Amino acid sequence: MAARVSFIGAGPGAADLITLRGARVLGAAQAVLFDALTDPALRAMAPQAEWIDVGKRGFAHATAQPTINALLLATAGRHSRVVRLKGGDPSVLGRLEEELDTLLAAGIDCEVIPGVTAALAAAADALRPLTRRGSGRSVSLTTAMTQLGSLHATRSADTEVFYMAGRQLGALSAKLLLAGWPGQTPVCVVSRAGWPDRRVSSHSVASLADAGPLHADRPAVVTVGAGGAALASAGTALSASPAKAPAATT
Amino acid sequence: MAARVSFIGAGPGAADLITLRGARVLGAAQAVLFDALTDPALRAMAPQAEWIDVGKRGFAHATAQPTINALLLATAGRHSRVVRLKGGDPSVLGRLEEELDTLLAAGIDCEVIPGVTAALAAAADALRPLTRRGSGRSVSLTTAMTQLGSLHATRSADTEVFYMAGRQLGALSAKLLLAGWPGQTPVCVVSRAGWPDRRVSSHSVASLADAGPLHADRPAVVTVGAGGAALASAGTALSASPAKAPAATT
Repeated sequence: MAARVSFIGAGPGAADLITLRGARVLGAAQAVLFDALTDPALRAMAPQAEWIDVGKRGFAHATAQPTINALLLATAGRHSRVVRLKGGDPSVLGRLEEELDTLLAAGIDCEVIPGVTAALAAAADALRPLTRRGSGRSVSLTTAMTQLGSLHATRSADTEVFYMAGRQLGALSAKLLLAGWPGQTPVCVVSRAGWPDRRVSSHSVASLADAGPLHADRPAVVTVGAGGAALASAGTALSASPAKAPAATT
Repeated sequence: MAARVSFIGAGPGAADLITLRGARVLGAAQAVLFDALTDPALRAMAPQAEWIDVGKRGFAHATAQPTINALLLATAGRHSRVVRLKGGDPSVLGRLEEELDTLLAAGIDCEVIPGVTAALAAAADALRPLTRRGSGRSVSLTTAMTQLGSLHATRSADTEVFYMAGRQLGALSAKLLLAGWPGQTPVCVVSRAGWPDRRVSSHSVASLADAGPLHADRPAVVTVGAGGAALASAGTALSASPAKAPAATT
């Protein structure tokens, strides 16, 4: 049988944020190439498969991209049902392009199964819609890191969501001010969005450095602008339902 | 038992694009308020529930928002497990804000379970990552329609994704040119993303009007810029694997 490689978005955190389609295809896999960031509980969905760790995505010690590409090709040569499992959604900051291009160039059948990207899980955890009637018609998803490893921030949409490392929040504040965001603009930070131990905190662009200690050493989603503001009634509700309250609110 | 309302993103199309978490909570619902746009197959996941149709989202004949808000409150008064099922992701162009605010103001416990928003499903269907190494670091999700019903387009991110009606593609072309997009900028149009009968077509900003007949009367996702371009090897692969090829490519 000809090989097919399925790129599957596992969602940002807990294993139950994968789609039904993703879980079904994962359950039929003979081999799974995965990033260390994804929930180990996903392994239980495909106990029959050979699981190949290709390293943490976006952090140090990651497997070099050409090595992952070569591994994908080799695995598709040995198995007919191969899954490339990625955190979040493969099409958003998932480094999908090179892997997909490599396989397509070799004539290998590919499909992409979308997933929940971290910005959506962060908005859900914080009960803060990314678009708002009247004030927030557009939302931009981006990484604050450039290819050369420097920090970069823009002001391009009503709501701007940055995928980044928690330890860089202080530096982001300065870059946001330089990009033209007023100091009092609301900012919501969620680290480990979608996980049971997620942390949610509220700030302004000017005071964002305060978020550093709470989110240090955790992958963070920083939502700036219209979508970063709490809803009018959210304070009441969060105190009324502690079970669903964010793990930390400052 | 105190009422809880769970806003669940059903994903953009076929029922199997809902998350495992969403399906589990849906399966325990006593009442489900849904939009006509979502896949009827979702109903089979909660046969025990009372299903309440609150109309097509974003189209004519929709139930007025205040009526939906009142229905949500009344349903939460009668049942302890209520689901508000929304197409795509609730936090992106899902009109979540007013419904959530209404319930929170009434002291009702709410949670949001994220879903796959249409832009991600369109990118997956077209095998075109929304971010690209070197050329596409940011992606903006927006609606081309203003609150007053006029068409609007911007050029704010490397990749701009518009959620819109297929019949407006010709008008969008003119607006994109006015917004500063060069005429030869690649554009990918996917209508009914995530569904088996999805349609995918390739254009440029200048030739986008050609897409009109193919996507008329279908909800469409229009991806402009870096993420709208086909991968270098995609042509080869699509012809090599007709089973996965888009339903139409022009």
